Amino acid sequence: MTGPRYDTIIIGAGVIGLAIAWRVAQRGLTAAIADPRPGAGASHAAAGMLGPVSEAAYAERELLTLGLAARERYPSFAAELTELTGAPTGFRQTGTVQVAYDSDDLAVLDRLHDLQARYGVEAHQITARQARELEPMLAPSVRGGVHVPGDGSVDPRLLTGALLGAVTRAGVSLHREQVTGVAVTGGRAHGATLADGTRLAAATIVLAAGWQSGVIDGVPHDILPPVRPVKGQILRLRGPEPLLSRSVRGVVHGSSVYLVPRVSGELVVGATQEELGPDTRVTAGGVWELLRDAREIVPGITELELAEATAGLRPGTPDNAPLIGPSALPGLVLATGHFRYGVLLAPVTADLIAQFLETERLPQAAAPFSPARFAAAPAAEGTPV
Amino acid sequence: MTGPRYDTIIIGAGVIGLAIAWRVAQRGLTAAIADPRPGAGASHAAAGMLGPVSEAAYAERELLTLGLAARERYPSFAAELTELTGAPTGFRQTGTVQVAYDSDDLAVLDRLHDLQARYGVEAHQITARQARELEPMLAPSVRGGVHVPGDGSVDPRLLTGALLGAVTRAGVSLHREQVTGVAVTGGRAHGATLADGTRLAAATIVLAAGWQSGVIDGVPHDILPPVRPVKGQILRLRGPEPLLSRSVRGVVHGSSVYLVPRVSGELVVGATQEELGPDTRVTAGGVWELLRDAREIVPGITELELAEATAGLRPGTPDNAPLIGPSALPGLVLATGHFRYGVLLAPVTADLIAQFLETERLPQAAAPFSPARFAAAPAAEGTPV
Repeated sequence: MTGPRYDTIIIGAGVIGLAIAWRVAQRGLTAAIADPRPGAGASHAAAGMLGPVSEAAYAERELLTLGLAARERYPSFAAELTELTGAPTGFRQTGTVQVAYDSDDLAVLDRLHDLQARYGVEAHQITARQARELEPMLAPSVRGGVHVPGDGSVDPRLLTGALLGAVTRAGVSLHREQVTGVAVTGGRAHGATLADGTRLAAATIVLAAGWQSGVIDGVPHDILPPVRPVKGQILRLRGPEPLLSRSVRGVVHGSSVYLVPRVSGELVVGATQEELGPDTRVTAGGVWELLRDAREIVPGITELELAEATAGLRPGTPDNAPLIGPSALPGLVLATGHFRYGVLLAPVTADLIAQFLETERLPQAAAPFSPARFAAAPAAEGTPV
Repeated sequence: MTGPRYDTIIIGAGVIGLAIAWRVAQRGLTAAIADPRPGAGASHAAAGMLGPVSEAAYAERELLTLGLAARERYPSFAAELTELTGAPTGFRQTGTVQVAYDSDDLAVLDRLHDLQARYGVEAHQITARQARELEPMLAPSVRGGVHVPGDGSVDPRLLTGALLGAVTRAGVSLHREQVTGVAVTGGRAHGATLADGTRLAAATIVLAAGWQSGVIDGVPHDILPPVRPVKGQILRLRGPEPLLSRSVRGVVHGSSVYLVPRVSGELVVGATQEELGPDTRVTAGGVWELLRDAREIVPGITELELAEATAGLRPGTPDNAPLIGPSALPGLVLATGHFRYGVLLAPVTADLIAQFLETERLPQAAAPFSPARFAAAPAAEGTPV
């Protein structure tokens, strides 16, 4: 091992890896980050909703707490990034409206609101009329729903661009190369090898490679995080002006769809969840389902240009919660498995990991997301549960 | 007017213009053809179905007769092209299956079959079971339909490629420039001006510019053909192997959809018909409608990759039939307004026009399509009827 030596090597330059690299460098540690195509993975396909409360039905209390902390941190995170780099992130704090298509769907939202109330988060039940007052383009047939004023959104492509700028300015060494393996000797991770043959050495290796964290070479099998690719297809529609002024989530015949407007007039419609392995084909069926559900909620989308259809692979975990913290292998730290919450959780994950790297103590907020919770379970094989 | 002089200038290098240029040159006439992007207009978006019989319900007997003549000419046309250029056209004569989604749709097909029988063309009514024997991927819910064994298909993108090769070999002068105007002096068309300033002179100008034939500069307003753009959105799906072995047309709740398989495994799904002027945006609504209807007929398409969504502008006319022959302006010949039948009718249109240019007599087969039929009518204003 004769290459350069850093305090930390971060494997993966999506929103998670980039945010970590930035925060680590800000604390005075030397860092390298490696990714053949920074920001081109799950971050590129993500819609960028910052809506932990709207997801509460599917999450444990710990994840909601982390999500709320993340949402709270976003305004300053985004502002700091833009101030530093001059690059926009598309951050907006315009809230979310959740609406139901039929009475069964409304019952789903009622149960969600009960949960939100129990967790003490701000979410208001609204009638169909109130929903349409907030968003006049909602379908006349839409039933009532829930309004979450504190939610926001960000443009993940702008965000990774801004983070790349921040990381470069902070002196992080960016390697646009595939990591072919983690170097492990004597029961300790101490480096990474790149596709061009470069060997990087570091005291700590942070694995933030999304679903590929689960298949990286060199890491002993029982240490590999139980992440799997969960395919999401997503559409970008374009019109002369925005149809919506805030994110809209719909429940349509039990199926979930969201529409996230950008200032530019772009409307992101997502997303499928498919367990097909590392498959990123855009399919006729995926696009059809998204359009079907989205037009039930906002019929006006049919007039919009279908500017892009793409697919990304989220890192899913057996309990849908991320893995944040040291692995059982000394020198190897995990920051992966963020599933559908990677963009939301990037700032908070970065702070937790950076703090751990500086102090060697993991903050209490990260305790529920310790990789140790999968240590002995069969789920550690990486199969879906 | 000091530029080169030809017997004929053809304006527009889609399938119609290219086929004319080829046939004209074969008869020993000198020709130039001008188009900024040969083959990139309606021909590029076309599915390439050769199914005049399946369209009979919507056409007059004269158009059916022309279409049948065109279908009959296709095998030798395609073979000659490929023999000459070595380039494939994707021509296949595998027939069409028309199927109905519900009993109302079946009634539509029954009426179509009555018409086909009256016209004496080969078309067999088939049961749902027979339809699925022909095409096992048809939905179990599909009702019976009509089998037209004589129909075929061609890949229009391959076809224009082969035609370009043939035209070049035949010595036609190809100008990849926009025609900015037709030169008319003393009540006679005698040339064309290109965007780069080039002036071409010829004894006859053939206007084969699709819907743009209706808005070309220099031609007196009362001579301009009454063609308008009719937008068609179309999808290209891809899978590991073909789902279908022949073209399938479906009638789904009164709406029409077709699926045209290619040898490559590609499946073309078309097409919307929209009166929106010269608008080629792919829209959420257009794609949704095509996928909705196609999957009712062949559910297996949902697994296919959505490789392309595009839109083209067909040249529509007030009676849905083409304009083939001399206009009221001496020196100006029309070959436009082929609406949804341009690929099918290209060979026969080319032969008719070439024969007219050589002999100055229009063959009888072209008589029903004379531009004169719109000469005095208000429809000559170019408005839809």
